[in-house]
Amino acid sequence: MSAPVYVSVVGAGSATDEEYERAREIGRLVAERGGVVVCGGLGGVMEAAARGAAEAGGVALGVLPDEDRSRANPYVTYAVASGVGQARNLAVVATGDVVVAVGGEYGTLSEVGLAGKVGRRVVSLGSWDVGDHVVRAASAEEAVERAFSLLREEGQGPASR
Amino acid sequence: MSAPVYVSVVGAGSATDEEYERAREIGRLVAERGGVVVCGGLGGVMEAAARGAAEAGGVALGVLPDEDRSRANPYVTYAVASGVGQARNLAVVATGDVVVAVGGEYGTLSEVGLAGKVGRRVVSLGSWDVGDHVVRAASAEEAVERAFSLLREEGQGPASR
Amino acid sequence: MSAPVYVSVVGAGSATDEEYERAREIGRLVAERGGVVVCGGLGGVMEAAARGAAEAGGVALGVLPDEDRSRANPYVTYAVASGVGQARNLAVVATGDVVVAVGGEYGTLSEVGLAGKVGRRVVSLGSWDVGDHVVRAASAEEAVERAFSLLREEGQGPASR
Amino acid sequence: MSAPVYVSVVGAGSATDEEYERAREIGRLVAERGGVVVCGGLGGVMEAAARGAAEAGGVALGVLPDEDRSRANPYVTYAVASGVGQARNLAVVATGDVVVAVGGEYGTLSEVGLAGKVGRRVVSLGSWDVGDHVVRAASAEEAVERAFSLLREEGQGPASR
Repeated sequence: MSAPVYVSVVGAGSATDEEYERAREIGRLVAERGGVVVCGGLGGVMEAAARGAAEAGGVALGVLPDEDRSRANPYVTYAVASGVGQARNLAVVATGDVVVAVGGEYGTLSEVGLAGKVGRRVVSLGSWDVGDHVVRAASAEEAVERAFSLLREEGQGPASR
Repeated sequence: MSAPVYVSVVGAGSATDEEYERAREIGRLVAERGGVVVCGGLGGVMEAAARGAAEAGGVALGVLPDEDRSRANPYVTYAVASGVGQARNLAVVATGDVVVAVGGEYGTLSEVGLAGKVGRRVVSLGSWDVGDHVVRAASAEEAVERAFSLLREEGQGPASR
Repeated sequence: MSAPVYVSVVGAGSATDEEYERAREIGRLVAERGGVVVCGGLGGVMEAAARGAAEAGGVALGVLPDEDRSRANPYVTYAVASGVGQARNLAVVATGDVVVAVGGEYGTLSEVGLAGKVGRRVVSLGSWDVGDHVVRAASAEEAVERAFSLLREEGQGPASR
Repeated sequence: MSAPVYVSVVGAGSATDEEYERAREIGRLVAERGGVVVCGGLGGVMEAAARGAAEAGGVALGVLPDEDRSRANPYVTYAVASGVGQARNLAVVATGDVVVAVGGEYGTLSEVGLAGKVGRRVVSLGSWDVGDHVVRAASAEEAVERAFSLLREEGQGPASR
């Protein structure tokens, strides 16, 4: 059995209904492919991605900005309390092999930038489309398909365990 | 089913044989009680704690200082690449409900201090015994027993999910 | 005497000649207005901004990703070794009252995002133009003018000391 | 003119009168020797050290846990808003060439540990005396004398700029 792929799903803490359902489907599809979902552990897109993973019987890691785990959304399988505030955005993208961005505000923009800085590709679903490391997708299904195919292109199953 | 307790196991990246075996037993005992082991993800005590958890069929989270997951020891169930260097010590202790320290050098000392700062109790097994938040144990078994009883005293199962 | 305004100047560690000269002029102009220049402490745009400030007799703070100050460029007046790797980008923008971005790659993009997250306006001089918190400038002089006028609009001298 | 030595002064945010006066004298003595004082930027020992430096016409850097500079004590010459919470303790000790600890609670203990981790010696004035990298002093004067002599022993003026 090979090590799982980790997919970071990033987006705003307050999501529209459409964003929420998209992130939930992304979480579900990643889990169905055996991947681990990584998110920021709070609400909105973060909650939806974790929820989708949980509903498919998969695993979602939530990396919180806080000094304890109490604010983790109820769908996170395992929560990490980073204690470093918004610097946890670095941990969220660095933990993934690839990043999927759904909608999002400035925090998400910082994650797209940090992903590029640490060499992760980003699939944007209605999110920021800035930088050569970003590709677009038009649906949750396409986003997950592109995320996994980007990893294959890079000759990585999971780039790292 | 209630949320699991998280126990952070901290100690040096190079462990003596005795420290390694103690940390491994701690990992095993925490897992047997249904707890999640949290560690720094690298070698020595960190590896041993994760190994013990894995051997008991449990879960070990490894929070690395690095920008990717590649250096995680092979026993970590899920690795988090924090990207923040030694500041990840804060994440390791903040993620746990309680901390067990086995041997250890200056990094471990910083974790004992950070644990106190964020309000976590520490059980020291041949490690730093500094601060009112630290209690001593003489064996792996006693260390785990004390860790769980400290949590009960605080009226917490898991202080937070 | 009122507290100085802090202006964060962000951009890539490898700058084109044009970017270098622009950042140097920005550093000089900020210092001439009594402002403190904040940068990432390394080369390229970071060096140029610090150099401009130093050449005008002003002060440049350099916030490094490293665990010591040894890589600070020679023009930094005071260096801070953050120890947190790329998470120091948060410190660079959070320390400023306003941010000026000159050219730049993914690290700069992350700074533009983090600036928005912590409520700082950004003036882009040939840099990322993404988000409602970003305004454009066509020259170093205009960039500094806009930075200071954004602060006046917000009713802040320095938002904080 | 050679680069200045940076001396990190650490201790609790609430200081006794004796601790406050000791930290203030340390700040003054460091500044009189041409050194830069580095502190955590808030109250208690942090304020006192900055105050002493300022009263002697010197410079004090304050590295805050916060996302803006507003809580910096009024004696800090230049404030840095790290944004990373308690992880800024790493920045405080990593920025210094040597560390002086005055009294202090768990945060200070973490700084003593982190100092050891990143290779900085610590002079303890009524503070934690744990680890081979710590030497004791009985007065502010002796603490500063020992701090500078430790640096000379290491063959460093400033270990790094």
